[in-house]
Amino acid sequence: MNRLVETIPPSAIRAINDRKRADAIDLGMGQPLLHPQMAPLEAALLWVRDNGCPYSPNAGFTELRTAIARHFAYPGLGSSDSVIVTIGSQEALYLPIKSLIDPQLHEAVVVTPTFPAYQKLCHIEGVRVREVRLSPHDGFAPDADAVLRALTPQTRLIALASPCNPTGRIWPESELRKLTEALLQLPQPPYLLSDEVYAELYFAETRPPSPALFYPHTIVASSLSKSCALTGLRLGWVMAPLEAAQVMAKTHQFVVSCVDTIAQRAAIEIFRQPALLSLHRPHYQAQRRVLLDAIAEVGLQVVEPEGSFYCLIRLPAPWAERSMEAALKVMEEQNVVTIPSSVFAVEGFLRVTFVAAPERLREGVRRIHRALTES
Amino acid sequence: MNRLVETIPPSAIRAINDRKRADAIDLGMGQPLLHPQMAPLEAALLWVRDNGCPYSPNAGFTELRTAIARHFAYPGLGSSDSVIVTIGSQEALYLPIKSLIDPQLHEAVVVTPTFPAYQKLCHIEGVRVREVRLSPHDGFAPDADAVLRALTPQTRLIALASPCNPTGRIWPESELRKLTEALLQLPQPPYLLSDEVYAELYFAETRPPSPALFYPHTIVASSLSKSCALTGLRLGWVMAPLEAAQVMAKTHQFVVSCVDTIAQRAAIEIFRQPALLSLHRPHYQAQRRVLLDAIAEVGLQVVEPEGSFYCLIRLPAPWAERSMEAALKVMEEQNVVTIPSSVFAVEGFLRVTFVAAPERLREGVRRIHRALTES
Repeated sequence: MNRLVETIPPSAIRAINDRKRADAIDLGMGQPLLHPQMAPLEAALLWVRDNGCPYSPNAGFTELRTAIARHFAYPGLGSSDSVIVTIGSQEALYLPIKSLIDPQLHEAVVVTPTFPAYQKLCHIEGVRVREVRLSPHDGFAPDADAVLRALTPQTRLIALASPCNPTGRIWPESELRKLTEALLQLPQPPYLLSDEVYAELYFAETRPPSPALFYPHTIVASSLSKSCALTGLRLGWVMAPLEAAQVMAKTHQFVVSCVDTIAQRAAIEIFRQPALLSLHRPHYQAQRRVLLDAIAEVGLQVVEPEGSFYCLIRLPAPWAERSMEAALKVMEEQNVVTIPSSVFAVEGFLRVTFVAAPERLREGVRRIHRALTES
Repeated sequence: MNRLVETIPPSAIRAINDRKRADAIDLGMGQPLLHPQMAPLEAALLWVRDNGCPYSPNAGFTELRTAIARHFAYPGLGSSDSVIVTIGSQEALYLPIKSLIDPQLHEAVVVTPTFPAYQKLCHIEGVRVREVRLSPHDGFAPDADAVLRALTPQTRLIALASPCNPTGRIWPESELRKLTEALLQLPQPPYLLSDEVYAELYFAETRPPSPALFYPHTIVASSLSKSCALTGLRLGWVMAPLEAAQVMAKTHQFVVSCVDTIAQRAAIEIFRQPALLSLHRPHYQAQRRVLLDAIAEVGLQVVEPEGSFYCLIRLPAPWAERSMEAALKVMEEQNVVTIPSSVFAVEGFLRVTFVAAPERLREGVRRIHRALTES
């Protein structure tokens, strides 16, 4: 066996999920309950009826790559050649880690707490990772200086997510500028892998800024999964400077050939009506309000989410260092699924999603509170 | 950059394809021109209308994995746990090469001439490859002894395709038995990666035998792409003994998460009516006849295809060592796209597909003959 693959620990989130009862209130997995718009899918099927179901070019239909490049209009990433259509954002994270890093020479820096995909992908590629741990004491506020302190001459790639799963935090423009201006001073500026899969789900007035606006070595990974309730469509993209895109396109070609033609034709329809990308935002704004109100009512504390559909609930003192135990107690005694922050390598929190129906959210919060405060 | 990825040569087949004129007779790429059955795709969309478009489990919907395992009924691979639903057969080839081979300890053996994917996937994983070159003098007849001679104590995996692209040859049961009986005598029997993507496209009375019938260390890779004219659906599978499937499932999870839900629901429909898998076989049988008759008429020689939708035309003596030059002459002077056998690391042939319309096939063959016989 390949020992790098064999030795990777199984997903703790999936393991918790596997223990849930059928009638549980599930605030664990971040899977939208909304149904997607059917019109783009129906249009895709009509296209297949007329054209068959051929391969697309390896990197995706040019029409889709062009639409994605134009929609985001990031400086230096405006050409279809900068876009590779991927199997969701998962492959969009894999391609740069696999393609741009020489495990013999380079390291990656990962800003945590975060969804553990970056570290695991580095693990299976034999890439050394340095983690930057943002502080629970200020609610995991993005911190350019902390990232800069972690860099070494071997740093080839820095991975960060904004909005972030699980913290819900967004990197503000000021911190991104501070970070990228310092990176540009380095003799070999590293790539900045910006995971923007939650970029449509934000709760302030303005869109989360992308580092691609300020930094020419940015690689953007995203997908339709969260914005359009299309997690199962596996339609993502990675945008990168040309030299990086060319090498990533080779990996993509050999690992998966190309993305599903039906999914790509549906995505073409969605980018023709880009309002579809933000259609679900008001729903999640309302859901977030329901969750935060319910939490305030029982007197628990949170890290207020600025984006994503996750919220970290601060564990009361007796549980602060035992998030796994707390999550198991909540599941076993109250039949509510939550994710302990220990799976993100930090203690003191339970992650809950606000995708569930409002009454389930309220009841879930009441039960969490009960489990954590009863003796 | 990752030098293993960066140093891989670009696809020669794609390069030739990129030079073709819009009005060319294209006998190059093996892309079915038939349209797929729409009913399974329509049923998949109805499912999404009712259920949304959620992630499937990482390895695929259990219903689909069970259906695939039962349909093939290979000894030892009968459980859904032995099946991983993949992004076409390309990912089905990647998973064993990435997951089961330790590049520090093991080597792979690849039976050639063949579609060059196996060697390239080994290259990006740093896995050393020994090629077994079947002989052009007997039409690349499958040869168990030749494979056995190539083995070393480091051989961890042997890749072979049956039916084979580009030769159209099928491994007969006798040679497979000879091979697998000898492998079973080894102290560490290697995995046998059996690429069965053309298994539905055969022209004799009986289905090509799978080594999975005789050898418990077989890994089967296949897809709906060729049998159902669904190359663009990217729906494949890999079947393997449990210990191998478990490690491959990890790679799959981290690289792509899971396969498109719509594609999987369509595949569930297809496996409910397995006659759909062989629906196109009579079409390719007729197409093969048209091609072989046209070739006989002009007096060229071929390796008679037993399966797949490819045929190797033997180059006349003056061109026998210059297949790339011959293919370029055919393209430039006669506007017909063919693939020189040099891209499969063997000289003496042009590969043509028989997916085109009969009149185009006949005209293409006449033009190939003209280009190769005119001075």
